[in-house]
Amino acid sequence: MRSTSRTETFPAHTPAASQIFTTVLSHGPLTRLEAARRAGLSAAAVTKAVRPLLADGYLVEAADEGARPALGRPASLVRVDGGRALFIGVKVTGGELIGVLTDLCCRIRLARRVPLTDRATRAVLASTAELAHELLVEAEDFGAPVLGLGVAVSGEVDRAEGAVRYSPFLDWRDVPLAELAATTTGLPVTVENDVRALTVAEQWFGAGAGLSDFAVVTVGAGIGCGLVVNGRVVAGAHGVAGEIGHVTVDPAGPPCHCGNRGCVEAIAGEAAIVSRIREATGIPVADATEAVRLAHQGVAGVREVYARAGEAIGRGIATVANLLGPERVIISGEGLAAYDLFAEQIRDAFTAAAFGSAARCDVQTRPLPFEEWARGAAATAIQSFISSDHPHLSR
Amino acid sequence: MRSTSRTETFPAHTPAASQIFTTVLSHGPLTRLEAARRAGLSAAAVTKAVRPLLADGYLVEAADEGARPALGRPASLVRVDGGRALFIGVKVTGGELIGVLTDLCCRIRLARRVPLTDRATRAVLASTAELAHELLVEAEDFGAPVLGLGVAVSGEVDRAEGAVRYSPFLDWRDVPLAELAATTTGLPVTVENDVRALTVAEQWFGAGAGLSDFAVVTVGAGIGCGLVVNGRVVAGAHGVAGEIGHVTVDPAGPPCHCGNRGCVEAIAGEAAIVSRIREATGIPVADATEAVRLAHQGVAGVREVYARAGEAIGRGIATVANLLGPERVIISGEGLAAYDLFAEQIRDAFTAAAFGSAARCDVQTRPLPFEEWARGAAATAIQSFISSDHPHLSR
Ligand SMILES: [Zn+2]
Ligand SMILES: [Zn+2]
Repeated sequence: MRSTSRTETFPAHTPAASQIFTTVLSHGPLTRLEAARRAGLSAAAVTKAVRPLLADGYLVEAADEGARPALGRPASLVRVDGGRALFIGVKVTGGELIGVLTDLCCRIRLARRVPLTDRATRAVLASTAELAHELLVEAEDFGAPVLGLGVAVSGEVDRAEGAVRYSPFLDWRDVPLAELAATTTGLPVTVENDVRALTVAEQWFGAGAGLSDFAVVTVGAGIGCGLVVNGRVVAGAHGVAGEIGHVTVDPAGPPCHCGNRGCVEAIAGEAAIVSRIREATGIPVADATEAVRLAHQGVAGVREVYARAGEAIGRGIATVANLLGPERVIISGEGLAAYDLFAEQIRDAFTAAAFGSAARCDVQTRPLPFEEWARGAAATAIQSFISSDHPHLSR
Repeated sequence: MRSTSRTETFPAHTPAASQIFTTVLSHGPLTRLEAARRAGLSAAAVTKAVRPLLADGYLVEAADEGARPALGRPASLVRVDGGRALFIGVKVTGGELIGVLTDLCCRIRLARRVPLTDRATRAVLASTAELAHELLVEAEDFGAPVLGLGVAVSGEVDRAEGAVRYSPFLDWRDVPLAELAATTTGLPVTVENDVRALTVAEQWFGAGAGLSDFAVVTVGAGIGCGLVVNGRVVAGAHGVAGEIGHVTVDPAGPPCHCGNRGCVEAIAGEAAIVSRIREATGIPVADATEAVRLAHQGVAGVREVYARAGEAIGRGIATVANLLGPERVIISGEGLAAYDLFAEQIRDAFTAAAFGSAARCDVQTRPLPFEEWARGAAATAIQSFISSDHPHLSR
C-alpha cells in the first residue's frame, strides 16, 4: 500500500497565505500576532490565511506553555507540522547520486547513495528513478505523502524551464531534466543549480533565515557562490550568477580552466591546491585529503599554499561584499576540512579589501556534510510545492 | 500666486495601482490589455486601478489613431500626463549644486546651477533651499504643482532614513539631510546615493526600462556602479553596494585611496589617468580634458594609459556579470569623453573575463550630460511620490 498522493496541492491559494506559511516555516513556532508582524500583514489576513492550512494539517496550533500569562488564556503558537509531507532531494555528482528524504521542515529522515558509472542523461535518469523509488518505498513507513522531488546539478540551470542548459561536469547541454525525471519518477520535479539549491536551504531553513541580503560561498573542488539580494536568490539573466570562482585575484596568477589567469578557483580550488603542493614539496600528493594531512603534519611549504588559497577566497568574498553589501557570508563546502589552514587569511584578506561599511558583513563558517547538497535539492522542491509553482508535473 | 500644493498625495492606494502606473510610466502609451499583461494583473484590476488616476489627471486615455481596426472602435491608449506634476532634482558636487525641474515623466524642463563655496552641511542646505526656491518660482509658469525634491549625494546614503551616513567627498557623517532639507524647502524630500539615483532614472525612464537585471557603470573622477537585481535597486545591508571602483584587478597595481592596490579606480579613475600620463610623458597635464586632448593628438605613451584603464573597467564589468548575470550593462559618465580611447579594451577585457553565458550581457554606452545626475535625483522623488513613501515630509 502506497501512502503517497502525488497530486496533492498546497492549500494556500493567495500570496499572503504562502507568505505566512513561509514565515512560520523559516522562523519556527510563532504567535499569530508575531507571524502577522513579520509578514507585514493584518491579523485578519493571517486568520484567513491559516484556516485552510490548519484544516489540512500543514499548520498546527497549540498553547504556548512557556509563556502562560498571570491572567487569561495562554497565547497559542502556530507551527508547521513537519511530518505532514515528505520530499526527496537528489544531488548529482560525478561518481554517485546522493538522495535524501526530508520532511516539510527540510529535516533529513533518510539518506541513500547510488553509484553512477555513466554520466549520460539516460543513465543518470535511470539511477535517479531507482534512488527515488527506493526512498518512496521507505517513505511508506512515515505515513505521509511524498509531494515533490528536487534535483541539484552543477552548471547553468534554468529552473523555471526545468532544464539544464550546460553542465560541463556532466557534459550535458539543454537537457529538459525536470520533464524527463517527472516521467520516470511520477513526482513533480524541480531542477536547480546545486549552489543555488544550497542557498535556498540556508534562506529557508538555515543561517540565512530572515536575512534579505546574504551569500553562501562553497569551497571545495570548485569555489561557488549563491547570492540572495532583496530576499530573492539571484539566478542571472542568462543562467550564470555567483561565479566567485572566476573573479580574478591576480592577472599574473596560474591559468584557470575558464581561459583566464589567477581566478579564485585557479588558486583555491582543490585541484589547484593539490598541484601547487606537488610543485612545492615534490611529494606526489594524491588528493585534497592527503594535502590537508601534509599541512597538519607541518610539511614545509604546504601551509603557504593554503595561506595563498585563503587570501584568494577572502578577496573574492570582499568583491561580493563591495558589490552587494550582504549582511552575512556563510562559507561552507567540503573544503572546510582545511578551514583551520586558511581561516585567518580569508578573514584578513576580506577585511583589507572590503570597502567602508561593507567590512561590517558577518563572515561565518558552517560545516557541510555531503548530504546537505541533496537537502538543498529537497528545499527547492518544498519551495516549489509551497509556491504552487510546478512547471513539470508528471502527466 | 503659488501653484504648488505640496501636500497632494498620489491617488494610487494599492500596490496594484502603483504597479499599473509605473508600468505605463516606464513603457509609454499602452492599451489597458497590454498594461494588464505587463503588470501581471487582471483587466478588472486595471480598470479599478486606473479610475482614480484618470479622475485626478495623472493618466489620460485617448483613441489610438495609429491602430484603427477595420471594424469597431479604435483601441484606446492609456498614458501618463507628464505635465500633471513637477519635481525637483538636485545633485550635490564639490563645487556646485546642479538642479533640474522635471515633469512627472522625468523630462527636464529647466536646469540651473548654484556655485558652492563651502561643503559644510549648513552651507549646502542654504544653497539647496536657494536653488529649490528659484526652481519653485520658475515652476509657476508651468501650471502644475511641484510635489517632491530629490537630492543625490555621493557616498553611503540610507534612503529609508533620509540620512547621509558617510560622504568622504563632502566630509559628512550621519547627516539627516532629508529632514533638514524638508524643513528649509517645504517639500517632501528623498535622499539617495548619486549612482543609485542615476540607476533609478535608467530603470524607470531609460535603457533599463523593462529589464529585471542590469547595471549602470559610471566612469569619471570615480568609477561607480548601480545594480538592479530581480527588478530592485541594490542598496546593500550596510549602505555600501556597487563599489566596482574598488574591485581589485591587479594586486601589484598602483595604490588606491581605499588602502588597497590595483583597484579599478586606481587605474581608470580620472586622477589615476592624469597622474600616469604625467609620469609617462613628463607633461604637467592639468586635468582629464587635457589628457583626452593629448591622446587625440597622438602624444606617445598616452593611449597606452587609456588602454590600461579600459582593460581595468572591462575586467570590473566582467566581475559584475560573473556574479550577477545582468541582461545589460550601461556605461556612462563624464569620462565617456574618452570613450573612443578605451572602448575596444573595455569590450575585449570584458569578453575575455566573462564566464560562459555571462558574456551574452549587452554592454552599451550612453553619454551622460551632467544634468543627468540631477535628473536621477528627480527620478527618486517621482518614485517616492508614486509609492507614497515619503518618510520626510515637511512638518
Ligand atoms: Zn576562471
Ligand atoms: Zn580602492
